[in-house]
Amino acid sequence: MSADIIAFKGSTTGKIVQSVIPSPPLKGAQVLVEIHHSGFCGTDLHYLHRDMVIGHEGAGIVKELGPGTRYLKIGDRVGFGWYHDSCGRCEDCLVGDGAHCRVDLHSFGTHELDQGGFATHAVWKEDFLYPIPDGMSTEIAAPLMCAGMTVFTPLIRYAVKPTDRVGVVGIGALGHLAIQFASKMGCDVVAFSGTKSKKEEALALGARSFVATKGQDEMNFDGKLINHLLVTTSAFPDWKQYLALMAPFGTIYPLTVQFDMLSVPHIPFLVKDLSIRGSTGGSRLIFQRMLEFSVFHNIKPMIEKFPLSLNGIEEARVKIQRGEVRYKAVLEQINYVG
Amino acid sequence: MSADIIAFKGSTTGKIVQSVIPSPPLKGAQVLVEIHHSGFCGTDLHYLHRDMVIGHEGAGIVKELGPGTRYLKIGDRVGFGWYHDSCGRCEDCLVGDGAHCRVDLHSFGTHELDQGGFATHAVWKEDFLYPIPDGMSTEIAAPLMCAGMTVFTPLIRYAVKPTDRVGVVGIGALGHLAIQFASKMGCDVVAFSGTKSKKEEALALGARSFVATKGQDEMNFDGKLINHLLVTTSAFPDWKQYLALMAPFGTIYPLTVQFDMLSVPHIPFLVKDLSIRGSTGGSRLIFQRMLEFSVFHNIKPMIEKFPLSLNGIEEARVKIQRGEVRYKAVLEQINYVG
Repeated sequence: MSADIIAFKGSTTGKIVQSVIPSPPLKGAQVLVEIHHSGFCGTDLHYLHRDMVIGHEGAGIVKELGPGTRYLKIGDRVGFGWYHDSCGRCEDCLVGDGAHCRVDLHSFGTHELDQGGFATHAVWKEDFLYPIPDGMSTEIAAPLMCAGMTVFTPLIRYAVKPTDRVGVVGIGALGHLAIQFASKMGCDVVAFSGTKSKKEEALALGARSFVATKGQDEMNFDGKLINHLLVTTSAFPDWKQYLALMAPFGTIYPLTVQFDMLSVPHIPFLVKDLSIRGSTGGSRLIFQRMLEFSVFHNIKPMIEKFPLSLNGIEEARVKIQRGEVRYKAVLEQINYVG
Repeated sequence: MSADIIAFKGSTTGKIVQSVIPSPPLKGAQVLVEIHHSGFCGTDLHYLHRDMVIGHEGAGIVKELGPGTRYLKIGDRVGFGWYHDSCGRCEDCLVGDGAHCRVDLHSFGTHELDQGGFATHAVWKEDFLYPIPDGMSTEIAAPLMCAGMTVFTPLIRYAVKPTDRVGVVGIGALGHLAIQFASKMGCDVVAFSGTKSKKEEALALGARSFVATKGQDEMNFDGKLINHLLVTTSAFPDWKQYLALMAPFGTIYPLTVQFDMLSVPHIPFLVKDLSIRGSTGGSRLIFQRMLEFSVFHNIKPMIEKFPLSLNGIEEARVKIQRGEVRYKAVLEQINYVG
């Protein structure tokens, strides 16, 4: 590669800094991706104090191939997410679940700290790049790489049935995608949001009903109970209220990164045989299915674009922290796109 | 029926009292059961202050049949558990899960408060009586009606595989049965107990390994992680320690009645895709399977017998509360048995 990578990193002060990353010749199955769009995820905010490239929702085109690559071609459109590599041989890798590799898991924040989405390019292992389907732009693909996977994975992995009622708590970057996915799976989707301000959009995205939660002791919208509840709010809700809405054998998925304790009242949880499931999105097969399903059903994040520059990143950060983005911030590489 | 029922009830002082229950002619599908043995469950202790017959692990023989009964015969050996009746028509009943009936669920502590296990007889609905297989005595069957179901149900309902490692926390009334069930299902069972005092018995019951937990910061018995963890202790353990032992996609079942909050650290729970499942044991089909499996594999509770009398009940209560019973207290009807 002729030029170095320009990347945006965290720093000890929490301020994003611009950095030049040397880019030696590609080895093995490495691929050089020219990044066109990069989603800005709420989880990135937890890494702003570290000396590492930020961003784990990248999308762009293949520019160079290492000598050990097998499938991708120059010019292919690809995306990448949280996971970089895994051992390929442990019992988790053998069942296609490299995201839980116990031997050599590389992910955002643990390995390749000089590679990421907030950059002109990224050097990435071929197996962890996901081809973007025809008909899907890179600005749409980028937010699906983490936000999309986070909400699609529990719906597809844990046997959500088309006849189920699915609750989505929080209508933001994750929630507005969850509504679309569950709705296109045939489910009866209930959207829960603090106020009524997002009601029309939630219904337009596919929710069948909408509940404004603030100031309500009980949420009795109708008699039908919820089978799967996807919780996408940055803070945990009042679990007791939601337990009352769950059907027997229902499952609750607290999907955001939370450093608090997960605390639910045990008796209502026990007597209804409820489950609480941790769920992350990292299976390579589910990545493929999620992208196929999205383009087939025209599922798209609603995005607000910012330049992939120091100023653009800062502007996006402020709006994300204020909860003002509807619904997903995407950084756009101004040199390549337009 | 010629005589009234003699039953033992809770009372406002928490002292068990003897009571005479009138027994009018049987109606509909009611069955009169002469109780020979009755398990004494830790959960009974929560009901001692209420004016109701105690005991929800009864076993005996059919003495009289109501006009609407269809299957049982006089002299059949039957048991009963926590659930008395359900509507039979709601969506839970339609899939065989009357224990979660939302329309007309009758259970211990909610309905038929004048019927229960600590009595000479009980009037019970035919559908909620479980025939005891040949080769199983009533003193063995009685504790299976709640303790057995509580630990057998998650193992059979939630797809525990014979190749899984199953952890059992607490070696008492529930735990010593859980070890036997999981072991006979082919699983690699790890028993966790406070001290080493129950080690030999746990291994003899089928545990492959044993961990004494008290005073240990970390429990590194070997490298193999746990797929299913059945928690049977009366108080919740230190969840953080156990989360570290769980395999990705592993499930934790807190099986005892606990009025505390269920609080786990969210991050380790999330990143391993762990689940916590509430689980109760009430499916009529699983009752049948549990009894068949027990007699086929010679699975038996280890019991300590007490007379089904005021003094016998009091003696058992004291030993249960002190944790001195190894492993299950069973009340024996001295007038009928021997």
